[in-house]
Amino acid sequence: MQVYLDNSATTKTFSVVNEKMIEMMTENYGNPSSLHRMGMNAEDKISFARGVLSSYLKCNEKNIYFTSGGTEANNLAILGYVLRNPRKGKRIITTVAEHASVSEPFKYLETQGYDVKYVKCRENGKLDYDELSSLIDDNTSFVSVMQVNNETGEIFDIKKIKEIISSKNKNTVLHSDCVQSFMKIPLEKADILTFSSHKINGPKGVGAIYIKDGLLMKPVIYGGGQERGLRNGTENAVGIYGFGIALSEHIKNDKTDYIKALKLRLLNGLKDMEKIHINTDTENSAPHILNISFTGIRSEIILHTLEQFGIYVSSGSACSNNGVKEKVLEKMGFSKQLADSAIRFSLSGDNTEEEIDYAIETVKREIEILRKRLK
Amino acid sequence: MQVYLDNSATTKTFSVVNEKMIEMMTENYGNPSSLHRMGMNAEDKISFARGVLSSYLKCNEKNIYFTSGGTEANNLAILGYVLRNPRKGKRIITTVAEHASVSEPFKYLETQGYDVKYVKCRENGKLDYDELSSLIDDNTSFVSVMQVNNETGEIFDIKKIKEIISSKNKNTVLHSDCVQSFMKIPLEKADILTFSSHKINGPKGVGAIYIKDGLLMKPVIYGGGQERGLRNGTENAVGIYGFGIALSEHIKNDKTDYIKALKLRLLNGLKDMEKIHINTDTENSAPHILNISFTGIRSEIILHTLEQFGIYVSSGSACSNNGVKEKVLEKMGFSKQLADSAIRFSLSGDNTEEEIDYAIETVKREIEILRKRLK
Repeated sequence: MQVYLDNSATTKTFSVVNEKMIEMMTENYGNPSSLHRMGMNAEDKISFARGVLSSYLKCNEKNIYFTSGGTEANNLAILGYVLRNPRKGKRIITTVAEHASVSEPFKYLETQGYDVKYVKCRENGKLDYDELSSLIDDNTSFVSVMQVNNETGEIFDIKKIKEIISSKNKNTVLHSDCVQSFMKIPLEKADILTFSSHKINGPKGVGAIYIKDGLLMKPVIYGGGQERGLRNGTENAVGIYGFGIALSEHIKNDKTDYIKALKLRLLNGLKDMEKIHINTDTENSAPHILNISFTGIRSEIILHTLEQFGIYVSSGSACSNNGVKEKVLEKMGFSKQLADSAIRFSLSGDNTEEEIDYAIETVKREIEILRKRLK
Repeated sequence: MQVYLDNSATTKTFSVVNEKMIEMMTENYGNPSSLHRMGMNAEDKISFARGVLSSYLKCNEKNIYFTSGGTEANNLAILGYVLRNPRKGKRIITTVAEHASVSEPFKYLETQGYDVKYVKCRENGKLDYDELSSLIDDNTSFVSVMQVNNETGEIFDIKKIKEIISSKNKNTVLHSDCVQSFMKIPLEKADILTFSSHKINGPKGVGAIYIKDGLLMKPVIYGGGQERGLRNGTENAVGIYGFGIALSEHIKNDKTDYIKALKLRLLNGLKDMEKIHINTDTENSAPHILNISFTGIRSEIILHTLEQFGIYVSSGSACSNNGVKEKVLEKMGFSKQLADSAIRFSLSGDNTEEEIDYAIETVKREIEILRKRLK
């Protein structure tokens, strides 16, 4: 049995997405910027995707810009706003729990003379809202906080953060990375929102950014003026269309309750194991993520053991496998012991109860074998 | 009859590219950064593409980085090198003939205090190599010149430019935009080369950059460390694979002689028309581009007229349709009259002699009708 439980890393594209993309690849290959019909037809497909997303966000189509992915969208949100508005205040704030596509642009801005503050977690991934509040001063131009943490599934309270910002400095712009929350929990609007296609069963290589009216932004990638000059380069029209199709499928057929039930099933099946620690607050997390530490056994060993039985999980976010040293879980206040033995199970609407039961059985058996062997 | 003669704007993906991409989308949807087999399998497909490109370039795989397209590759080449090496010299040089994805990053660098020089054309798109030579001084860190101009198909002499640089300042780094030349004319190596997938029958949303050993670069997009930290963000693995397949098809089945013959057929069919000017130097141009001005008739009128007969051409590069005012042809030394009436025909190996004959017949007839009507 093959059980893919790494849906926070990436998802399988919906078959209808594949079908529509294939159709477009074959028939509708024009450059959206071309003035003739072949160009218009490609532009139409981008407009469809823009329509679906703007309708979901209840915003104007003009507030949506497509990018090459969530990482580029986050870079555009942060670098595009901060570097375009240098006189709005040198303090910019984010959290220790962000994805590298947010924390790395902030690190870059640190080298450019910005006063970067990282809000800590109080314990086990709970954001310290009081610290955030105390950090926002008159000189604070920008705050970036994700809606759902990609490691634990923890939901951050964007509504509360908006209230804090509103009470401390009304000119502070809030960006919220929605890559892990999108189509998983109700969206909480912010001034800038960012999305990824491949986390919601669309193709890789596509993302989007929502920017509220009136914000001045600079592009990250310069060129031919596409996406009203903010995201230059020939649009990945087929990919953007695939993103639109994936999104409309999610909107039509919401499976979050089903996924929530699968996660509860997985949790109930594993929670009585010895020497484990549930890192996910099941009362305040996205429906698809369950992070558990099997203390004393290194994550990678568990990952590769489960892989032999066709079960695919993660030992931390996929993006932290490229040489980044400090684990996000540790930054979020989990002990090194917990971080080193953590496994992220991330579910999708494609998973079945049978798969979950097989995973429970396999995890229990193999962890026991590993514990005996490692003694 | 449908005759697509806008292959410099974008090309139809090869059917084998579609097939392989569909296969991968369906079966092999892992995140290349995931540590398990699903990740490795996706990474393998990226390695395949890297293998094909590096083998063609006779370089190490490590010299190749994939991007979201030619525009991003050009931005990475220019901003990535210049901003990483600010002390190597404030003078940076490009030409008036470059694509917006090169000229716009240079314009941005102008705002950052760099001394940007634009080499002019002597007449009708011929680069002034003497001016280039006179501009390179001890303080010149970077030069960017395209291999083939996207408007006229003019081939710029990169070998000569390397000799000039070598005689004037050995520390000057040369970038060459290969987007229009790739798989069209023999490639001339430079320190940095950039490529686009969708111009060679691969998917949109994919590009690549070659960087020679030892050059220090900074990323344009920050994040999870993909592509050895130089191009962050989950790889568009399916798209990169499609690019690799397209490239290997071109290498296996070189159609440039066939395309050259088609262009000659088109040229011979049109050259005796009255009040036209051939803007392409047929002795020194890429095989696929023929640019002709039908003086007195606005390009857009011709474009939309031909479109009614199923013939798709361009009135200038697609990327200049997004609000960019000054036409590249004018910057290249063509009169406003010629620039305003220019049509770019760009061919591919998919075009047939019948299509070309139909295009010749239609262009001749419709231009005559337009001339009568406009009298």
